[in-house]
Amino acid sequence: MLLYNSAVSGNCYKVRLLLAHLGLEYETVDVSVVDRSGRAELLGLLNPGLRVPTLVLDDGRPLAESNAILWYFADGSEYLAADAYERAQTLQWMFFEQYSHEPNIAVARFWLAYSGKPEEFADRRSRVMTGGYAALDAMEHHLEFRTFLVGDRYSIADISLYAYTHVAHEGDFDLSSYPAIRAWLQRAASQPGHVSIDA
Amino acid sequence: MLLYNSAVSGNCYKVRLLLAHLGLEYETVDVSVVDRSGRAELLGLLNPGLRVPTLVLDDGRPLAESNAILWYFADGSEYLAADAYERAQTLQWMFFEQYSHEPNIAVARFWLAYSGKPEEFADRRSRVMTGGYAALDAMEHHLEFRTFLVGDRYSIADISLYAYTHVAHEGDFDLSSYPAIRAWLQRAASQPGHVSIDA
Repeated sequence: MLLYNSAVSGNCYKVRLLLAHLGLEYETVDVSVVDRSGRAELLGLLNPGLRVPTLVLDDGRPLAESNAILWYFADGSEYLAADAYERAQTLQWMFFEQYSHEPNIAVARFWLAYSGKPEEFADRRSRVMTGGYAALDAMEHHLEFRTFLVGDRYSIADISLYAYTHVAHEGDFDLSSYPAIRAWLQRAASQPGHVSIDA
Repeated sequence: MLLYNSAVSGNCYKVRLLLAHLGLEYETVDVSVVDRSGRAELLGLLNPGLRVPTLVLDDGRPLAESNAILWYFADGSEYLAADAYERAQTLQWMFFEQYSHEPNIAVARFWLAYSGKPEEFADRRSRVMTGGYAALDAMEHHLEFRTFLVGDRYSIADISLYAYTHVAHEGDFDLSSYPAIRAWLQRAASQPGHVSIDA
């Protein structure tokens, strides 16, 4: 398999983390998340969204969107429940991640730590900080009396939300008032086969 | 079943459309998408994201995120493929919808047609128009030689993207140069059991 990958992208890290848990081998092509020129040429035939991660399976078929890739590989494994309601809840958290979490927390982190020009985004910063903290509030409330996001078992819902939550401080998010999230991050990082984002 | 619903929300319409196709009965509670006060009280225990649609199943269990709800009801029906790769592609298009399409096309439509104060969003408008047209470009390219988004069969991927694409003109998007999208919209609207957004 071939993974069009960015080392700093949390979306790509999700895929690398699940494939590490599952012990699956793959090769990578590095794609910049700063210089986006050439993406149409590189990814146009593989992923209409022109985003990374984009994965090419051994038989040449492409697959895109980080959470769709997680689903493809986790289905049938211990990382995705068999129960229909728990599966829907897993998707609920992954759609929450792409709609309410990533566009705020990942974007704030990118602007501040990776764009090389944080000042250009200064006027849009307060909106993503507010949105990011709202997403963290929702997670904190949910995790207060739970071990993991769905069914009290580590799953791709946790992998999906771990990716950018554990580096939220790079976007200047302060997790000190989120004890349930911090304990959950520790539990996720202690799972068998865990790899760090810079592994 | 009880659907926390907004008549004008495309996200809610997705659920109503699939449930109509499947012939499933439900009751609705109307929730405003303009006045968001009281959402925490109304939805806080049901949906961490405080969004509509939120569905409460007959046994009282809640489910949220439009595309997760679609998956729950479509699985096992003709509206979701059995093949693992086609299922992952279905998710790919639904994540594309929530990340690249809805935050641009639905948001532009809301600001212009439903917010009651489009002038307040004027300075953010060009960004969502650019993003919306990029999403339409991706769909047009994909649909040019295809009947439907996944596996040449009408599925929840089509339902998901039909919802806001067919009302994109309310956000001032011009589909005249998107013939493949316009033909696909017609095919979707002619499916058995189709209901309109204002049905």
